[in-house]
Amino acid sequence: MASIDAVLSRIDDNQPAALDRLFEILAVPSISTDAAYAAHCGRAAEWLAGQLTEIGFQASVRPTEGRPMVVGHAKAARRDAPHVLFYGHYDVQPVDPLSLWATDPFRPELQEAHGASRIVARGASDDKGQLMTFVEACRAFTETGGLPCDVTVLFEGEEETGSPSLPAFIAANKDELRADVALVCDTGMWDNETPSITTMLRGLVLEEIVVRGADRDLHSGGYGGAAVNPIHVVSRIVADLHDKDGSVTLPSFYEGVDELPADVAEQWQALPFDEKEFMSGIGLSVPVGERGRSVLEKIWSRPTCDVNGITGGYAGTGSKTVLPAQASAKVSFRLVGRQNPTKIVEAFRAFVKARLPADCSVDFLPHGASPALQLPFSSEALTRARRALHAEWGKEPVMAGSGGSIPIVGVFKQDLKMDALMIGFALDDDRVHSPNEKYELTSFHKGARSWARVLDALAK
Amino acid sequence: MASIDAVLSRIDDNQPAALDRLFEILAVPSISTDAAYAAHCGRAAEWLAGQLTEIGFQASVRPTEGRPMVVGHAKAARRDAPHVLFYGHYDVQPVDPLSLWATDPFRPELQEAHGASRIVARGASDDKGQLMTFVEACRAFTETGGLPCDVTVLFEGEEETGSPSLPAFIAANKDELRADVALVCDTGMWDNETPSITTMLRGLVLEEIVVRGADRDLHSGGYGGAAVNPIHVVSRIVADLHDKDGSVTLPSFYEGVDELPADVAEQWQALPFDEKEFMSGIGLSVPVGERGRSVLEKIWSRPTCDVNGITGGYAGTGSKTVLPAQASAKVSFRLVGRQNPTKIVEAFRAFVKARLPADCSVDFLPHGASPALQLPFSSEALTRARRALHAEWGKEPVMAGSGGSIPIVGVFKQDLKMDALMIGFALDDDRVHSPNEKYELTSFHKGARSWARVLDALAK
Repeated sequence: MASIDAVLSRIDDNQPAALDRLFEILAVPSISTDAAYAAHCGRAAEWLAGQLTEIGFQASVRPTEGRPMVVGHAKAARRDAPHVLFYGHYDVQPVDPLSLWATDPFRPELQEAHGASRIVARGASDDKGQLMTFVEACRAFTETGGLPCDVTVLFEGEEETGSPSLPAFIAANKDELRADVALVCDTGMWDNETPSITTMLRGLVLEEIVVRGADRDLHSGGYGGAAVNPIHVVSRIVADLHDKDGSVTLPSFYEGVDELPADVAEQWQALPFDEKEFMSGIGLSVPVGERGRSVLEKIWSRPTCDVNGITGGYAGTGSKTVLPAQASAKVSFRLVGRQNPTKIVEAFRAFVKARLPADCSVDFLPHGASPALQLPFSSEALTRARRALHAEWGKEPVMAGSGGSIPIVGVFKQDLKMDALMIGFALDDDRVHSPNEKYELTSFHKGARSWARVLDALAK
Repeated sequence: MASIDAVLSRIDDNQPAALDRLFEILAVPSISTDAAYAAHCGRAAEWLAGQLTEIGFQASVRPTEGRPMVVGHAKAARRDAPHVLFYGHYDVQPVDPLSLWATDPFRPELQEAHGASRIVARGASDDKGQLMTFVEACRAFTETGGLPCDVTVLFEGEEETGSPSLPAFIAANKDELRADVALVCDTGMWDNETPSITTMLRGLVLEEIVVRGADRDLHSGGYGGAAVNPIHVVSRIVADLHDKDGSVTLPSFYEGVDELPADVAEQWQALPFDEKEFMSGIGLSVPVGERGRSVLEKIWSRPTCDVNGITGGYAGTGSKTVLPAQASAKVSFRLVGRQNPTKIVEAFRAFVKARLPADCSVDFLPHGASPALQLPFSSEALTRARRALHAEWGKEPVMAGSGGSIPIVGVFKQDLKMDALMIGFALDDDRVHSPNEKYELTSFHKGARSWARVLDALAK
């Protein structure tokens, strides 16, 4: 097996070809939430299986009831090496509003900005660019004498829709997927020079409600004031979800939510985090949400509720005096600590039903539910990974919380009894889920080098 | 000039050809609220001007900043006849959701149901079928010796969008449009055997709000709980618009709203109106709205507020964890009595601004504002029209209120000092503004006969 320096040099030499490979997968519109893109998700999975096969993995595309999984296995050059399971997702968010994209979201481009190069495309950062950093690290090992660890790879195609098929797939393939530790690349760096390992991850409950009133759309002049208006009902429900202090009003919502340990709270307070700058970066100045909490707490360690979509009645230009038959809202809850997703779903549904007028019915459409997750600070893998990242970036990585959810990490914990090292190279300004998503070329390049060092450190 | 009996016979004989003519104009998708259909509105206007010219009117299509007007003039067979101004509108509501239509909304069909024939198409009842009843009445007079009154016709193409161009057009053409009385055909019958004259008409204020927060769509996991969510803001505003008793909460909203005179209240109480049946006809059972008011009061004589559309965030299938940059609502107020539309707009805007968090901005998009209208019961034209309708239908017409708005009637009153006789032949189950709109063949046929009798009665 070659030295880590030889592997890092190989990553450097491979860069132009690595970028070509990334652009190939970025060009596939693998949007998971819209069934119209299912075939593209299939293509993305096939392409990834091909990549893995090319670098010596036994890889296959595995069907599910939704989008397929990609699973690959490769052995280390030496026997009795540790076994890692790497996870990433090839599906991406929808691109609407398309009019706000400066370039075609599925025609990746390398653009220069502020003296640096960035890869611009839907999925560049979330998560295709990230998962390819690991594949490229494996490629460099393979091309210079072999992997330092046994490696299993699992790519899913439903992360952006709450991973509905994942639990059953993991449950059905426990023996095949179990490893010593999971590596997950779907998180960010503290800033473009400071790496980060995410040790706290919020859970996610996604519920859609459809409230129905009359059996058809009505003329609001003929029936308004007498017939129930589902828009009013949904608005009342949404308005009631928060109190004046910004807290979520679901009964028992904060059950299982602990205060931060004192040392972590201190570390976070010491971080050079400028709330004003954070807010002004998105055109805002005044944080909302729970009274008396810092912004970092709010987005890293506190549970929240946001409505991600609301619809009802006429949405075109101009006006239409319609009293609609139905209205709907897509509601999400971010969970922390020991909050129980099942109980949150139950509490939410009871909350909605309690606010339904006599003549209304409601349909609940569940779009996923996963608990929050915490990695023990005493973990040996964590210690080794910190050392590896320090070597690559010349800085101690930040032990971060994460506002986003990665359902797989909870499933790994629950079903495979595995901890996960969450290491990623995204930046806050990557416009993840938004138009003009990008990934820094530095993230892509040094990301691959970081994974090489982490694999090397775990094997020692 | 021929006897009224000859004119009525001519209408009967003309029926098959009259239906062909109606189908021609129903096939034109003259949706006014969507600029994409502007050319179709133009075609509808040209077709109507052609019809009027064919039966001896001096008719022309008159441009406005929005959709064009059609104006036509014809003289009575005798001198010194009274002068009427007839108003109708050729524009129609959008057809969404198209999936709920059993037939193409712009391919009119004659269908049999419950032993009667009905015309099915968008605009069949509102308002193309109705306005053609008057045109066919005029045709029958012209073909049998001439009109009994001087007739001016005004067709507009923006009624469904609050008639934005109408006031300026009327103001600029006062001398041309002034007549002794206005005839308006955009209302309904009490039931399919009982005619109705509408003497109270609610006004309408249409306001759209667009609330903006962050300068772009955000990942709700990365910013939720700290960044303001415009969906929450709009929902709060909508929820606050009504109190628990169903009253509208805008300050001074009920200023200028009188209780019904005792005799009218008694007449309405005596009407065979079954609230349960009315509600069950639309799949509901419990009236909402102002506590202590009958359904008839609520929809005929009380002011209301309904949100006709709400949008924000992701509206596709599945979920998207987005915290949207903006959300919007289309709000309408129905006005009665002496409620001042300008003051209502001002009160609404202040109400919205008072509920905006520090970081939000709001745009107000006005879509029209018109006052309510009341026709004096002592009007001579009303007395004659009642007699004419009684002769045609064999029943005393109901003196009705109307929940819908017809802005033109207010403009006629204000600018031309003209009262309007609102006589129409629509039925409650016409599915106006909804999928599968229809107009009874009886309404179309006896509607034309009714107008012939009204014109005859006004001329005596």
